[in-house]
Amino acid sequence: MRDNLIRNFVKTQKPSEEIMKSSIAAERQKLAAFQMKIKEAKLPVMVIFEGWGAAGKGSVSREVIKDIDPRFFQVATMDAEPTPEEKRKPFLYRYLVELPEAGKFKFFDTCWMEEVTDGVLNGSLSQKDYRKKVNSIVTTERQLTDNGYLVMKFFFQISKKEQKKRLDALMKNKNTSWRVDDEDLWENKHYDKCLDVYEQYLSDTNRPRAPWYIIDAKDRKWAVLQVLQYLNQGIDTALKNHSLAVPILQNTFPLEPIPLLKDLDLDKTIEPEEYKSELKRLQSELSALHYELYRKKIPVVIAYEGMDAAGKGGNIKRITRALDPRGYIVHPIASPEPHEKARFFLWRFWNRLPKTGHIAIFDRTWYGRVMVERLEGFCSENDWQRAYNEINEFEKELTDWGAVVLKFWVQIDSDTQLARFTDRQNTPEKQWKITEEDWRNRDKWDLYENAINEMLKKTNTGYAPWHILESVDKKYARIKALKIVTAALREACDKA
Amino acid sequence: MRDNLIRNFVKTQKPSEEIMKSSIAAERQKLAAFQMKIKEAKLPVMVIFEGWGAAGKGSVSREVIKDIDPRFFQVATMDAEPTPEEKRKPFLYRYLVELPEAGKFKFFDTCWMEEVTDGVLNGSLSQKDYRKKVNSIVTTERQLTDNGYLVMKFFFQISKKEQKKRLDALMKNKNTSWRVDDEDLWENKHYDKCLDVYEQYLSDTNRPRAPWYIIDAKDRKWAVLQVLQYLNQGIDTALKNHSLAVPILQNTFPLEPIPLLKDLDLDKTIEPEEYKSELKRLQSELSALHYELYRKKIPVVIAYEGMDAAGKGGNIKRITRALDPRGYIVHPIASPEPHEKARFFLWRFWNRLPKTGHIAIFDRTWYGRVMVERLEGFCSENDWQRAYNEINEFEKELTDWGAVVLKFWVQIDSDTQLARFTDRQNTPEKQWKITEEDWRNRDKWDLYENAINEMLKKTNTGYAPWHILESVDKKYARIKALKIVTAALREACDKA
Repeated sequence: MRDNLIRNFVKTQKPSEEIMKSSIAAERQKLAAFQMKIKEAKLPVMVIFEGWGAAGKGSVSREVIKDIDPRFFQVATMDAEPTPEEKRKPFLYRYLVELPEAGKFKFFDTCWMEEVTDGVLNGSLSQKDYRKKVNSIVTTERQLTDNGYLVMKFFFQISKKEQKKRLDALMKNKNTSWRVDDEDLWENKHYDKCLDVYEQYLSDTNRPRAPWYIIDAKDRKWAVLQVLQYLNQGIDTALKNHSLAVPILQNTFPLEPIPLLKDLDLDKTIEPEEYKSELKRLQSELSALHYELYRKKIPVVIAYEGMDAAGKGGNIKRITRALDPRGYIVHPIASPEPHEKARFFLWRFWNRLPKTGHIAIFDRTWYGRVMVERLEGFCSENDWQRAYNEINEFEKELTDWGAVVLKFWVQIDSDTQLARFTDRQNTPEKQWKITEEDWRNRDKWDLYENAINEMLKKTNTGYAPWHILESVDKKYARIKALKIVTAALREACDKA
Repeated sequence: MRDNLIRNFVKTQKPSEEIMKSSIAAERQKLAAFQMKIKEAKLPVMVIFEGWGAAGKGSVSREVIKDIDPRFFQVATMDAEPTPEEKRKPFLYRYLVELPEAGKFKFFDTCWMEEVTDGVLNGSLSQKDYRKKVNSIVTTERQLTDNGYLVMKFFFQISKKEQKKRLDALMKNKNTSWRVDDEDLWENKHYDKCLDVYEQYLSDTNRPRAPWYIIDAKDRKWAVLQVLQYLNQGIDTALKNHSLAVPILQNTFPLEPIPLLKDLDLDKTIEPEEYKSELKRLQSELSALHYELYRKKIPVVIAYEGMDAAGKGGNIKRITRALDPRGYIVHPIASPEPHEKARFFLWRFWNRLPKTGHIAIFDRTWYGRVMVERLEGFCSENDWQRAYNEINEFEKELTDWGAVVLKFWVQIDSDTQLARFTDRQNTPEKQWKITEEDWRNRDKWDLYENAINEMLKKTNTGYAPWHILESVDKKYARIKALKIVTAALREACDKA
């Protein structure tokens, strides 16, 4: 079942030049007035232009933004084909890093549509992969609108004849002939085939909260007016819905059972001799695996979360010592900076993804959303309740991309934490490691334990499960982590 | 691509009896407190229970509603199979007439899911018809949530073994054995096959604004608690989103061009002699057609809209005089009554649909939404802007069902209206036909003309086009209407 958005699109009678001129002026004024309201409401606006080659996306967008203060918008011009560097990131990466921040516009001169429809048309994308990418796009657009983004999608429509006329005119002129490439000519020659693929994509991605708007692009001024009208209408609606509550979806991902923190056996230890020999053996294995996964271009994401003073830092160190520094990076995650806070909460993690063959280790992660942000009220209840699903979707994107995703929960009991805090306090060279905040968090141990249990339960997916590191004996925890990492990388390398 | 909502559903550890008891009490209190807020916010709540036979939908719903004031809720128990009478209405009809009104709950003990999945399982529903029905359901649920309804959908899950155990127990007892029917036994025997069909349906209809919640129904009390928790969560979210603005979708239906009112040629006339003979001829043809469409079970919906004093009443009379009174009904549509106003604006028209073989004539229609309701501010701008699409969807449902949908716009010019108003004023037996409101509306002629032009343009679909009746010469308009009606019915009868 397919909606025919383009074929059923009915052109409105173009107004007279005079009316058009005054209407454009009026819409421009409206847009300019909205600018400050968008800023006040911290509304991020993502405007996507797609459409036929030579349909005038570029020139129309230039007209649309003309009166917006340059401090409030950016234009992202995306190539249909990712660069070799970009190909080493997940498909969505190069678009998502361009996300606008709260209160600002970002205009995308083609976005994720073109890459996908091109793939279908040139045969590089199977039907199954097409479905998967469409699914990723629909999910992402839903995540963005759920998180308060206004997403406006425009498709610039011209007829085969009109496109031919434009391409001919461009080619005739020495100064513009470079703007016509083989793809444009191919598209015009196979107009009906392309139209079918575009219709299918538009129908597959047309959602009530991120709908498509077809723009009659035959006349440039008229196209500008249509875009301005839809844009103002969309902004008006979005401003009325400021700080929307979103229904909380039930999990649909495969989840594995996981014990409650209180039921963990934290007494596990390792003998010093065994520790030494195992450490050596495992680090040397990991070192070899690192080269193998580099050659096989497998991306790896290792996420560390745990109680304060549980020994995350030392644990990470035992991993990284085995790695070639050119092939890994550790991201210590603190509270978000202003430019990060102004975007969708997963943005700063999308932004820090490794490329294929590389390892990214996160010392604290996106799970902050459902722990500290939840308990300290840094986000709304609706936000953190929604986040379990958003996180599962995020990690699904990563594993679908081919990444090995390892999540460690480093656990100690309350008495051990107290002992380590006291030791840090009393040892001058460790005092930097302990802050007033650590003590405040410690007072909320029970609240945290409760939130962590909920988090572990709701995000322990089959494709990205949690691994508990019992870390009262830090050495035990380190060996366990190394074993899990090497086993997982070995498996991934063998399969690749 | 399918989400496995049931297979990936993870049971939460059932709390202890004691905790469960206090939690249920707490959720009950919450629900009771919400009751008044729901009333104040005029939130209509539609709760749908679906699931396996003997999963306890009935007993759980009884527990859930126990503390709700009976004035605030109703239960609709729907059979999987429509009655012969219901089969003569569109598929969605018997559910939609049950819609809750603003500020109240309606619990559906099975809704449109069961009819559809049964159809797939017993082979009466082709894949194509399944897609069509799923599409109708998704569209309807979206229309409802767009119009402020909270739609909560629960699927009661038990294992094959548990179901078998329950059915056996029911059958063993003379007092309960009647509750087990062949379908239940068949379902249990073909559990995996049924599960696949249910999974597909849940995945196809799981939408961010009307999501599914799987309920672990093995333990009754625990099921009650789960439903109460989700319900309270959903209500909480919906109350926060009071009077939401919804993005306005661009048309995706096939639209035909239609002239502006000012460009109509209203001078068309008919000679008295021709009128007489044509009237006789056409009415006798219509009379014959009425019997034919009755036998062929074709439903007919005729919608009249037009300027005040344009002659709608007389026009309708010329149609109905040819009809058998047992086979048609005229619905004069005035402003909605309180119980109609308390529901989705299309509800009162769903409620007045003819059965197959019958004709329903609407003297004024659902188009009031985009004329009088728009211009008099009886609904929000967001409401009437959204309504063009909602109306096109509604009429698509009707034509897909097999109905002939005829829409007449009866037009006169402003001078003719003035003359007729004055005549009414000055003729004692016609004075009832003219009110102060008519004069007030007349003052807004230009506003109405503008709104009508927009309406005609946006709803002139290929499957349910407008027909203009130029009615300065009322006789001309009557003959034109009769010709259109007879031609359309002739075509439908010939095809049937």
